[in-house]
Amino acid sequence: MWVGQPVEKLPTPVFTVDIDIVKRNARKMREQVQALGTHLRPHMKTPKTLECGDLMTGGTRRQIVVSTLAEARVFADGGFDDILYAYPLPFDKVEECATLSERLEAFQVMVDNPEALEQLRKRKLAGGKRWLVWLKLDCENGRAGVRHTDPEALELAKAIAQLEEVELVGIYAHCGNTYNCRGVQEIQAIAQETTTAVLQFMDKLQTVGVQCPKSSIGSTPSCSHPVPDMGKLSEVHPGNYIFYDAQQMLIGSCKMEDIAVRVLTRVIGHYPHRNQLLVDCGWTGLSLHSFGQMPSGYAIVEGHPDLKMVGMTQEHGRIEPISGQLDFSKFPIGSLLSLVPYHSCASAAMHPIYYVHKEGKIVATWTPVRGW
Amino acid sequence: MWVGQPVEKLPTPVFTVDIDIVKRNARKMREQVQALGTHLRPHMKTPKTLECGDLMTGGTRRQIVVSTLAEARVFADGGFDDILYAYPLPFDKVEECATLSERLEAFQVMVDNPEALEQLRKRKLAGGKRWLVWLKLDCENGRAGVRHTDPEALELAKAIAQLEEVELVGIYAHCGNTYNCRGVQEIQAIAQETTTAVLQFMDKLQTVGVQCPKSSIGSTPSCSHPVPDMGKLSEVHPGNYIFYDAQQMLIGSCKMEDIAVRVLTRVIGHYPHRNQLLVDCGWTGLSLHSFGQMPSGYAIVEGHPDLKMVGMTQEHGRIEPISGQLDFSKFPIGSLLSLVPYHSCASAAMHPIYYVHKEGKIVATWTPVRGW
Repeated sequence: MWVGQPVEKLPTPVFTVDIDIVKRNARKMREQVQALGTHLRPHMKTPKTLECGDLMTGGTRRQIVVSTLAEARVFADGGFDDILYAYPLPFDKVEECATLSERLEAFQVMVDNPEALEQLRKRKLAGGKRWLVWLKLDCENGRAGVRHTDPEALELAKAIAQLEEVELVGIYAHCGNTYNCRGVQEIQAIAQETTTAVLQFMDKLQTVGVQCPKSSIGSTPSCSHPVPDMGKLSEVHPGNYIFYDAQQMLIGSCKMEDIAVRVLTRVIGHYPHRNQLLVDCGWTGLSLHSFGQMPSGYAIVEGHPDLKMVGMTQEHGRIEPISGQLDFSKFPIGSLLSLVPYHSCASAAMHPIYYVHKEGKIVATWTPVRGW
Repeated sequence: MWVGQPVEKLPTPVFTVDIDIVKRNARKMREQVQALGTHLRPHMKTPKTLECGDLMTGGTRRQIVVSTLAEARVFADGGFDDILYAYPLPFDKVEECATLSERLEAFQVMVDNPEALEQLRKRKLAGGKRWLVWLKLDCENGRAGVRHTDPEALELAKAIAQLEEVELVGIYAHCGNTYNCRGVQEIQAIAQETTTAVLQFMDKLQTVGVQCPKSSIGSTPSCSHPVPDMGKLSEVHPGNYIFYDAQQMLIGSCKMEDIAVRVLTRVIGHYPHRNQLLVDCGWTGLSLHSFGQMPSGYAIVEGHPDLKMVGMTQEHGRIEPISGQLDFSKFPIGSLLSLVPYHSCASAAMHPIYYVHKEGKIVATWTPVRGW
């Protein structure tokens, strides 16, 4: 019912996606990764829509990463394959992983501990299939994964390779530590460190005679500013780049014009005695990310660098000037403001529907995957 | 498919609701408000389900508050009426508010500025109906509302009362400032201040001959520990009490045994070198609320007062001891942990479905309203 209408007509709060920017981000990343001499396995965790999956894979619907089985299910149903569930194998989901492995050509799981391997061994796949397994390596990021310097990493790789029921497909590292960077130089230093750590580990595997065809690192900062050595990996797996956001701009991954998404909101009240506007976007519309990270508060109010989103409750947002008195006549009650999210993954996750526009005119609505 | 199963079998992360506690919270609040000599208009913003609406209204399906039109729509479709949309009238939603006003016996809107009143005047209701309007008063809370001390408050009340197209139904104040309280004494001080401010305003209305039958204040802290004067109001409107949460416990609204909801999560990794567990609940499962508010971090790990949830990313949570070395053997990979949310409204909002149990056995699934 909204197709053909201008975004300004949408009831707020609302999550909008600029299709031209999304297409450009998708194309640019594909081209960049190709120029690097490797392959792109885009992560679906940010957009969580089939439409973005299509754009990010260049229409092949092959070679993606997902963060939840809900994503795996929806993308599999949508005709996607070569799906890597890049998450430490959750023991309550082994059965569903088995079903997906039996059903798809290449559903792949990730492990970082021997107990997980034992879970796979106990659940044999039908039709003589083998589990396709990636080993998660922690290359100084400090979340999941066996530390690349830990002798257990090599032991686990060997154990995977030796087990009849499974096949060691690849080594996976997430350089989430790039999120602490500011600027290309810092990003590339982490990208290089992670790449080197993974490539050295691949060498070790070769030395001890362990077959492992693939290697992959990823994060939007590192893949937006790749180092040449990343071309020696078999693939990379960024995700957020399809939307980008204010956080990525602050890190140095992108420019303002690369940010494809907005949360539109309307002014619902003037409170001159405290120099504040209320808007109809609270944390249900934007998420509570970015606390204290930006001079402009929880979001960037597009076109108004003098404004700061200072707080939110469930359905209310408070906006005030960074300094000085607010000119309320510029923001009549009912008028529209456009918020650039700090973390687009988080803001997107709050919305049951995305409104997709081309030059401000709605061209489609997308329904993201929710739940697990 | 889950009914009859123990909650321990559910795939995680998952949002669970203890039906006995919910029923007890609902009954206790109804009885308490009745004993006070006033009426309960429960707020649906926390549970957002018809089932909770039923329990909170004692089966009448009358006299509720909603925070979004999506809630209004769903509750109206579910047979609810006497619905107060307690939100500063959003100008993009006047037409849908009109439709609901025409369709229901008593759909009520809220205004805190003359421009909103003008919007109502311009949209006449069919069938000779009049808009049912509450005036939002800000009694030192500092979010929406005309300040109770501001002469404009009385002017706006008069303007509402004088306009033919609308009817001034009530005065509404939200004492959200109780959320800064610690302990019953502080809560009751705010409850008293807000009540006094509203009652004094009602007196002023009477003095100037403005008819206004209703008055309402609310917040879960104040309604959990009401002051006798609240009995002089025509109604109160708490919401969170149906679930409660760790925040309400810290404020002093409830005890641990009153908290009806949990986010269940499983251990997905052991990282002894950094003394941390990973669990399968990130901010998509819990929300990012509570930063720095609790010694136990982002949630309370039930039964483990020595643990702290120190951080989350999209699908990962990090748990470590508050001090000392973690005994990993107590938390095998795959084992279940139960998180008491800091802010149940926020955690509930992340879940497409709630799993309702009685003594740990699933008795129902509830689907909350999402969107706007």
